[in-house]
Amino acid sequence: MNILDGGLSAVKGYKTAGIFAGIKKLKKDLALIVSDTPAAAAGVFTVNTVQAAPVTYDKAIISAGNPVRAIVVNSGNANACTGKPGLLDAAAMAATAADALGAQSGSEILVCSTGVIGVPLPMQNIESGIRKAAELISSTRESAFDAAQAILTTDTFTKEIAVEIIIGGKPVVLAGIAKGSGMIHPNMATLLSFIITDANISADTLQGLLGTSISSTYNMISVDGDTSTNDTVLALANGASGSPRIKRGTEEEPTEEEPTAEYTLFAEAFDYVHAYLAKQIVRDGEGASKFIEAQIEGALQESDAKLLAKSIITSNLVKTAMFGEDANWGRILCAMGYSGAHFNPDTVDLTIASSRGEILLLKQGLPVPFDENIALAILKEHDIVIKAVLQDGNAAAAAWGCDLSYEYVKINGEYRT
Amino acid sequence: MNILDGGLSAVKGYKTAGIFAGIKKLKKDLALIVSDTPAAAAGVFTVNTVQAAPVTYDKAIISAGNPVRAIVVNSGNANACTGKPGLLDAAAMAATAADALGAQSGSEILVCSTGVIGVPLPMQNIESGIRKAAELISSTRESAFDAAQAILTTDTFTKEIAVEIIIGGKPVVLAGIAKGSGMIHPNMATLLSFIITDANISADTLQGLLGTSISSTYNMISVDGDTSTNDTVLALANGASGSPRIKRGTEEEPTEEEPTAEYTLFAEAFDYVHAYLAKQIVRDGEGASKFIEAQIEGALQESDAKLLAKSIITSNLVKTAMFGEDANWGRILCAMGYSGAHFNPDTVDLTIASSRGEILLLKQGLPVPFDENIALAILKEHDIVIKAVLQDGNAAAAAWGCDLSYEYVKINGEYRT
Repeated sequence: MNILDGGLSAVKGYKTAGIFAGIKKLKKDLALIVSDTPAAAAGVFTVNTVQAAPVTYDKAIISAGNPVRAIVVNSGNANACTGKPGLLDAAAMAATAADALGAQSGSEILVCSTGVIGVPLPMQNIESGIRKAAELISSTRESAFDAAQAILTTDTFTKEIAVEIIIGGKPVVLAGIAKGSGMIHPNMATLLSFIITDANISADTLQGLLGTSISSTYNMISVDGDTSTNDTVLALANGASGSPRIKRGTEEEPTEEEPTAEYTLFAEAFDYVHAYLAKQIVRDGEGASKFIEAQIEGALQESDAKLLAKSIITSNLVKTAMFGEDANWGRILCAMGYSGAHFNPDTVDLTIASSRGEILLLKQGLPVPFDENIALAILKEHDIVIKAVLQDGNAAAAAWGCDLSYEYVKINGEYRT
Repeated sequence: MNILDGGLSAVKGYKTAGIFAGIKKLKKDLALIVSDTPAAAAGVFTVNTVQAAPVTYDKAIISAGNPVRAIVVNSGNANACTGKPGLLDAAAMAATAADALGAQSGSEILVCSTGVIGVPLPMQNIESGIRKAAELISSTRESAFDAAQAILTTDTFTKEIAVEIIIGGKPVVLAGIAKGSGMIHPNMATLLSFIITDANISADTLQGLLGTSISSTYNMISVDGDTSTNDTVLALANGASGSPRIKRGTEEEPTEEEPTAEYTLFAEAFDYVHAYLAKQIVRDGEGASKFIEAQIEGALQESDAKLLAKSIITSNLVKTAMFGEDANWGRILCAMGYSGAHFNPDTVDLTIASSRGEILLLKQGLPVPFDENIALAILKEHDIVIKAVLQDGNAAAAAWGCDLSYEYVKINGEYRT
């Protein structure tokens, strides 16, 4: 697998644009990702009971299994808690994009919105913006960067990645862009992620891969434990690479057979792209001064390992300890204890590590005397690994989070207006 | 029901003491609560998989159902993550107290510890402290206040309450003290609560009442979402009031009958004491500048109402919005959405209120235009009520929390040493 420059522009058969449409005050706020031909599409969405209009709209498109021509995204307004008019606005965005791009209908278009909630979309600006963006779409590096920029809200940097694998002798490229986590009008930290590939793969197979990949990437990150109303991950595959069809087995999904070599190769690249973007979102977490990886080894089941890893990176007490550069293993063990996972606390080994070294804090569930100065030196670094080795089984998992800082309280405590 | 002054000293047949034993640096750190005669005892304990030694010790006493003579509590050291030596220390505390008080054995004594974890108890100071406290126990107001003080860690005030009801023509008193939530060596916010009564009631009936009462009081508060390794609530009843036996029905527990009038009266007073102490703990939450009550009405089931109320007061985004005095209803609805409760978001009415008035933010799931200045005036107050009225059923619940402030990050981010 090779890492490529170029972001979304590294993938064959797609064009992109990112423009200022007048939804935000100054910055780019509307993006188009367009496949030259109808593409297989997959999507996963927020599990929040309160779902934004574009989430409702996209779910219907994805579950119908129709090929998709484009994704249209606006930032600055989430089109959430907007009732029936909001649903009509989402459909109108799709219809306008279909018309401007020469697609058959709005059912070939996926729609995403992120930003302030409870405010109707400024549809005049959005519709004229979509038509303007449709004229500007191109396969240049600049257009790809513009699209990556136009989906951002309070993000402090763009998040893009492209990787290449070889399938049947042909280069196949996967690329993605993502946004998270914050807003100019702080409301909730929406996660949006778009992955496109020129692989030849069915929508069903892509959806199966997406479901699996999500559970160990986006679902293992946390900035503040709040699940947004708009979270959406969409994947498109248009087959423009000319590579052979990627199937899970000799048939399409589902199958009991061992996965094929090309499926495994594609799945690895797909996971890599998601994990990269997920980690980038955490690195840009609101007010974050540390990037924290929790690693669990030796768990009874993967589900236990995931609960334990996620509980560590979600705990406010662990997060404030990391902000304070305090090797406070008690809070880590405590967070593991209330995670709901099955594990034996009396056989836990706990270490913290960074580029400055590693230090053992707990051996067989009991504290080990350690040099506080060495611990402090390790925790002074930006990237911290908390590792718990259990003796309950062979399952492992990792989760990624950030610290809880004054800046987080400031960003989210400031008055909206 | 009358509210009494006097704290624990308002209850017949108990003596208390609170002294400095040299576990902390300066402040009182050892408390004794002693019943003149063996008392019926009930207890509930942390569900954290990592449990402190005194929790393990007390669970065995309570499940055996034996009468109890005394509770011995130290602050400054949690006796958690201390392995087998920790368990022996907890047993030694009980044995010393039994000897000093003339009880038959350590199995008549309950033990609690709170403070820094992973450090062995200073047993010499603890044992001499217990003997000193046993000589000082008395039924004076001063001794009751001393005991309430000696269980505190970073608490900024003592938490005590006493109430009186009449059963069979006799005054029956219930009194409680509690501590939470913080530590001088910040580790985890332990909750300890001790309720004593002179009612005549069996241990089984008391345990049944305690289990019910907990679920709508202590289990409905949150300061930071972190469940401690030491959380313990203990109740003693010694019958010294001379009142008739309080039974749930004509027999002791369990019964299918309607509860008796005296049971209902006692249960109300018992709930009142727990709810009072639970709210006091939140008011003293680390770094808290606001006290937040979330009220849910019209839920399908009580379990849904509880999930919704608790999700609101636990959300970091809601907590920072309250700190920022921002009527950010989007975050409230979002927290309800990811709570896991069943509810229809399209029929939610949402209001915020304080002593300055009430304002409607959301009607039938859609935003209502409101005057930001009025909202700000309401949110400037210390005590805030967030109320969501659903149209899904008739169940209701309340939960209590505090805001997330710079001070919280400071308290928990500061280096331990």
